[in-house]
Amino acid sequence: MRLSKPNIQLNAQGKLHHFLTLEGLKHTHLTEILDVAQTFIDPATGEINKVDSLHGKAIMNLFFEPSTRTLTTFEIAEKRLSADVVNLNIETSSTKKGETLLDTLWNLEAMLADMFVVRHNESGAAHFIAKHVAPQVHVINAGDGQHAHPTQAMLDMFTIRKHKKDIFDLKVAIIGDIQHSRVVRSQIQALSILEAREIRVIGPTTLMPSNPDALGVHVYHDIEQGLDGVDVIINVRLQNERMQSALLPSEKEFFNLYGLTKERLKFAKADAIVMHPGPINRGVEIDSEVADGEQSVILEQVTYGIAVRMAVIKTIFDNAQALKK
Amino acid sequence: MRLSKPNIQLNAQGKLHHFLTLEGLKHTHLTEILDVAQTFIDPATGEINKVDSLHGKAIMNLFFEPSTRTLTTFEIAEKRLSADVVNLNIETSSTKKGETLLDTLWNLEAMLADMFVVRHNESGAAHFIAKHVAPQVHVINAGDGQHAHPTQAMLDMFTIRKHKKDIFDLKVAIIGDIQHSRVVRSQIQALSILEAREIRVIGPTTLMPSNPDALGVHVYHDIEQGLDGVDVIINVRLQNERMQSALLPSEKEFFNLYGLTKERLKFAKADAIVMHPGPINRGVEIDSEVADGEQSVILEQVTYGIAVRMAVIKTIFDNAQALKK
Amino acid sequence: MRLSKPNIQLNAQGKLHHFLTLEGLKHTHLTEILDVAQTFIDPATGEINKVDSLHGKAIMNLFFEPSTRTLTTFEIAEKRLSADVVNLNIETSSTKKGETLLDTLWNLEAMLADMFVVRHNESGAAHFIAKHVAPQVHVINAGDGQHAHPTQAMLDMFTIRKHKKDIFDLKVAIIGDIQHSRVVRSQIQALSILEAREIRVIGPTTLMPSNPDALGVHVYHDIEQGLDGVDVIINVRLQNERMQSALLPSEKEFFNLYGLTKERLKFAKADAIVMHPGPINRGVEIDSEVADGEQSVILEQVTYGIAVRMAVIKTIFDNAQALKK
Repeated sequence: MRLSKPNIQLNAQGKLHHFLTLEGLKHTHLTEILDVAQTFIDPATGEINKVDSLHGKAIMNLFFEPSTRTLTTFEIAEKRLSADVVNLNIETSSTKKGETLLDTLWNLEAMLADMFVVRHNESGAAHFIAKHVAPQVHVINAGDGQHAHPTQAMLDMFTIRKHKKDIFDLKVAIIGDIQHSRVVRSQIQALSILEAREIRVIGPTTLMPSNPDALGVHVYHDIEQGLDGVDVIINVRLQNERMQSALLPSEKEFFNLYGLTKERLKFAKADAIVMHPGPINRGVEIDSEVADGEQSVILEQVTYGIAVRMAVIKTIFDNAQALKK
Repeated sequence: MRLSKPNIQLNAQGKLHHFLTLEGLKHTHLTEILDVAQTFIDPATGEINKVDSLHGKAIMNLFFEPSTRTLTTFEIAEKRLSADVVNLNIETSSTKKGETLLDTLWNLEAMLADMFVVRHNESGAAHFIAKHVAPQVHVINAGDGQHAHPTQAMLDMFTIRKHKKDIFDLKVAIIGDIQHSRVVRSQIQALSILEAREIRVIGPTTLMPSNPDALGVHVYHDIEQGLDGVDVIINVRLQNERMQSALLPSEKEFFNLYGLTKERLKFAKADAIVMHPGPINRGVEIDSEVADGEQSVILEQVTYGIAVRMAVIKTIFDNAQALKK
Repeated sequence: MRLSKPNIQLNAQGKLHHFLTLEGLKHTHLTEILDVAQTFIDPATGEINKVDSLHGKAIMNLFFEPSTRTLTTFEIAEKRLSADVVNLNIETSSTKKGETLLDTLWNLEAMLADMFVVRHNESGAAHFIAKHVAPQVHVINAGDGQHAHPTQAMLDMFTIRKHKKDIFDLKVAIIGDIQHSRVVRSQIQALSILEAREIRVIGPTTLMPSNPDALGVHVYHDIEQGLDGVDVIINVRLQNERMQSALLPSEKEFFNLYGLTKERLKFAKADAIVMHPGPINRGVEIDSEVADGEQSVILEQVTYGIAVRMAVIKTIFDNAQALKK
């Protein structure tokens, strides 16, 4: 299944029109977003100031799948850009009355939405929507099925760059469910585009990708070997669904084999940073000592998520404006 | 049952203070709203710009009956006027704690609401509320039972005027459930006030009004005869409830007898427009070929709904301001 | 149980940093809030104007317990200060996914929240949160268990001061469930700090405090004796939970013994005012003739609640600003 048709998200000038996936994007697309995100952060205070950039623009957050965390960061980013924000829980909407998804979309579009931020439990949902909206409407993928979660990956890249400068020189290890996680898919694509020196994935066979070479990653089943000498450790949430589906034995056994503990952390470089997209399962994939420890940048990731989402939104509208000239 | 006491919605200068129903309003009331709505639409781009008119005003959307579509259009209209917007799902509020509806209202009013937008499944709810609010508080009816949905009818009139100029010359056919639909009640009143040349209603006997002469409409049971030579076709959503109540045989049979198809559309004038308040039931009251066809203005209606709702709100506040001088 | 550590809510200058409880606050803390609240009310019109004070600040309303009334007044107050407002129903959030409350909080904090307004059914929740947030984040208690509801008490003080000038001279009677009500706890503390001449509590033994002397209140089981000569009557909602727990016989019997009727009101001073935090139970703790009568200031309380909440929020941010200088 090839969900991503990279070109659908680029405009005639090759700039981002939608933001659906990292697949097919170039180094410059990513660094532009990271650079714009940096401008939102006050160098003196670390705060993110409110700007007027999107005054009069209407952004609709279409969450077909609930996610307080992602919705809230988008909502804050949108309001900090001074957009008008409407949250729509689509489960309770007209689709109940027998209206098709496309009719719902076209109606929302006719309500003069300038952008849809879409969260859906089916892979390809954001692409489907992007394919069917009017040319002046933009779509951001806020997570679709097991496919992609590109803004999460971008905030991860921003966090790495903040601590490590050039991603080009880094060895990065991702621990956990590599096979089913949309976050990891997007992270690997981002790291590849930004030419990380080495990308390692660590976990049990049942959670490893079937095509590591195509992805450009090295598979490790032993966590200590996998962490050896890395600069960045990305820990991924273990979905309960996987446990239930018998792909995994138990939380306790997973922690014994792959939980990130203080002892295991020592195998990485002394200045390695620990990341996690959240929400964390303490005592399952990560030990509290590590999650709350000095090398953890987990909460910084959340803050940078605001700046990065502001950057993605603003870049898309700026690109559309540039096209008109 | 005579729910409408037209005078309750007019102030001492005979101007709109509330907007509850079209019954009893004059030609000038309606054309004023339509003219104000026109000013919100950018003639060059067709966009609706954000204005500061309602900065500092608080509008509460009181939805006793859920309606994502209507709530969202009001919310967007209110935010585009720069009002502070609070959405209240009254089902989950203090009324649960044994407080009466009036106590709830008086409390919301004491929270300095300047306007209530009310949606309720009981006919007369918006009137009841308007009767009991303080003199400085305005009420807009966003649909009450089988009684009225005046902003929907006004956006329909705006759409017609956009395409056909003068409603005075037009033959309009409304197909569907004429007897129970609040949308149709309001449409017929609007068309009467704007002196449409002829208003036809088309459908099975069980869905026709009992008093067509009083309403000033002509009843057709044959759709081809009813559509013959009309300028405007308004298709109305068929409520599932009607099916269940045995007023109607089946969706399929309704489509066979009254579904708007490409073939039937040919009986209308060649430049007739097709309207529908949404959400549409494809294959029940309208065929996809027609809904998505060249003569369909269904999605334009949605966009104009923003401008018209902005106009109703702004007109009411302007009228109150004029009264103070 | 001593939930309140008063110092946690004061900054290095002894000014409010959080607003969790009235316990331990000084006369000046309370009068400052009341004075600031007064500045928001237009002396000519009685309206509360929108101000720009909190432009760019993000306030998150964390309601672990639903309360449309309190949430709405905070939401309006925050928007009238031009803050960016995010409402979070925490029951539907990540805590479901196994994340701890503290992890949720730290994440929300990392989303650059400047203030949390917290409602929780457990006593001490707001204190717990205040203890764990970053130094630049402020917490307001919007009601926690049976512990405190300080903004409600402050709006009550504001209402009294509006009608009676100096609280120092007043006899105040509180009727109802004194033992379990967080509102009453906070009211008694506020009245004590503002040195009301006499504080009386009226009700059946089962609802009276176990330590009246420590609270500085006089207990009356006879309502006519209790109301004799008072300036202010505060009626408190009778919680249905109390009925069910057999602390009370029945609604009807309570009304017979303690319901505030027109006849009983005559025992108070002729110009006594009647207050109630709402929502009222007509015919249980208060008769409609009194609730809607000339001496009732119940709806004024709601309006002043907006001004007082604006004042609490603004004062806290101003204090933080002053500290930086």
